[in-house]
Amino acid sequence: MHSPSASPESQRPFLTWQRILDWAQEHYRVRSFSKDERIPARPGLLYLVQRGAVRLVGTAQVSATSQLSSRRINRTPEEAFLGFVGAGQPFEIVAQSPFTLQAYAHVEPTLVVWMYWHDLDNWPHFRREVLDAFRYQHQRKLLWLSALGQRRTIDRLLGFLTLLVEEYGQPATSEEDPEILRGYSLPFTLTHAQIGSAIGSTRVTVTRLMGKLRQRGLLIAQEDNLICLPADSINRAS
Amino acid sequence: MHSPSASPESQRPFLTWQRILDWAQEHYRVRSFSKDERIPARPGLLYLVQRGAVRLVGTAQVSATSQLSSRRINRTPEEAFLGFVGAGQPFEIVAQSPFTLQAYAHVEPTLVVWMYWHDLDNWPHFRREVLDAFRYQHQRKLLWLSALGQRRTIDRLLGFLTLLVEEYGQPATSEEDPEILRGYSLPFTLTHAQIGSAIGSTRVTVTRLMGKLRQRGLLIAQEDNLICLPADSINRAS
Repeated sequence: MHSPSASPESQRPFLTWQRILDWAQEHYRVRSFSKDERIPARPGLLYLVQRGAVRLVGTAQVSATSQLSSRRINRTPEEAFLGFVGAGQPFEIVAQSPFTLQAYAHVEPTLVVWMYWHDLDNWPHFRREVLDAFRYQHQRKLLWLSALGQRRTIDRLLGFLTLLVEEYGQPATSEEDPEILRGYSLPFTLTHAQIGSAIGSTRVTVTRLMGKLRQRGLLIAQEDNLICLPADSINRAS
Repeated sequence: MHSPSASPESQRPFLTWQRILDWAQEHYRVRSFSKDERIPARPGLLYLVQRGAVRLVGTAQVSATSQLSSRRINRTPEEAFLGFVGAGQPFEIVAQSPFTLQAYAHVEPTLVVWMYWHDLDNWPHFRREVLDAFRYQHQRKLLWLSALGQRRTIDRLLGFLTLLVEEYGQPATSEEDPEILRGYSLPFTLTHAQIGSAIGSTRVTVTRLMGKLRQRGLLIAQEDNLICLPADSINRAS
């Protein structure tokens, strides 16, 4: 868990993490989800990812075009990928208008602990860490909005991928020489449709632009299809 | 200040707000800014908007195209509008990679109080309110990302405007009959270029699409040029 004001010792576990997990186990407050299963998150509750990763998604409730009755029938609501919540990180879903937020398990298994905010009354230090984690997530989302404000889709795409890899990337070494760091790669798969839904584009365009980024050496092709960026393009905190 | 888990009594002032302001005055921790003046915000410090409004802006440090040397000369970095921080709300600027975040006074005068996080040690309840305000801002940014994930620029535009008016809008009454609520309008001006910078589009496109939204009755034309949406399209918490 991160603290925005503290030193960049990222992925630091909660100090009282083990105690929380024991408590959750004891009170049946932990549940396992399979890949792409929806996590029924309710406002007023706090969720912690114990293991795996959660994918946040937003769905539009209104659109300028759906209000024209002739087109209404053909429209399915667009789902936007809003980011990951990794192990050790908290999430909550409160705001719902004019978009609906939802959480899905992104990998299998994903273990999620849930609690009421007042459950944290006994752990003031832990509550502080949770709130600091939300501060950190908020700052990351401001960067993400900066990426999406760019006019060219390829710039939005590169900014988006850079932010994701900066936060979640793991060292990827050369296949010939494991001593050589090729770059950092995302540990989760992400489809081109999901990437498109995050940057206001389509699957087809994302596929085409990712090809361009590879040609320019801004993206590294990997056999496992995981997204990998060159080491020198990533500002690693740790 | 909002609390995401609390009841929707929005714009609730800090409970200890007056004490903080007195303290800030006494310790020379308050400064006035004129319109569009940059607020020199540093990581590790906490800022509170006492009066006026702050505009957050992000600037890209990298782009897919600027790395082609032939084009590098002609590029000025794109600034993206990331939202307002209204009176009574806190802000901070921590994360900086691969985008730079900056704060500007959006109206004149804007008064900003600053403090170190440890200054809040004496006001634990107030610190809790500040952290809850960041939770709330984080949730709003997730909705904002949902808006920007939509493929059609007009949908991104309408989603973006709806979110802003939902949060900051003030009742706008009919000119003929002040008893009739026409809609809710944004109390700040926002240029079409600024709107374009938020939704990944251009000034020209925004102007054209705002005309379309007006034709469809999704946007109300006002003499003062402030952005106004019909009352029935806004989900007001209060």
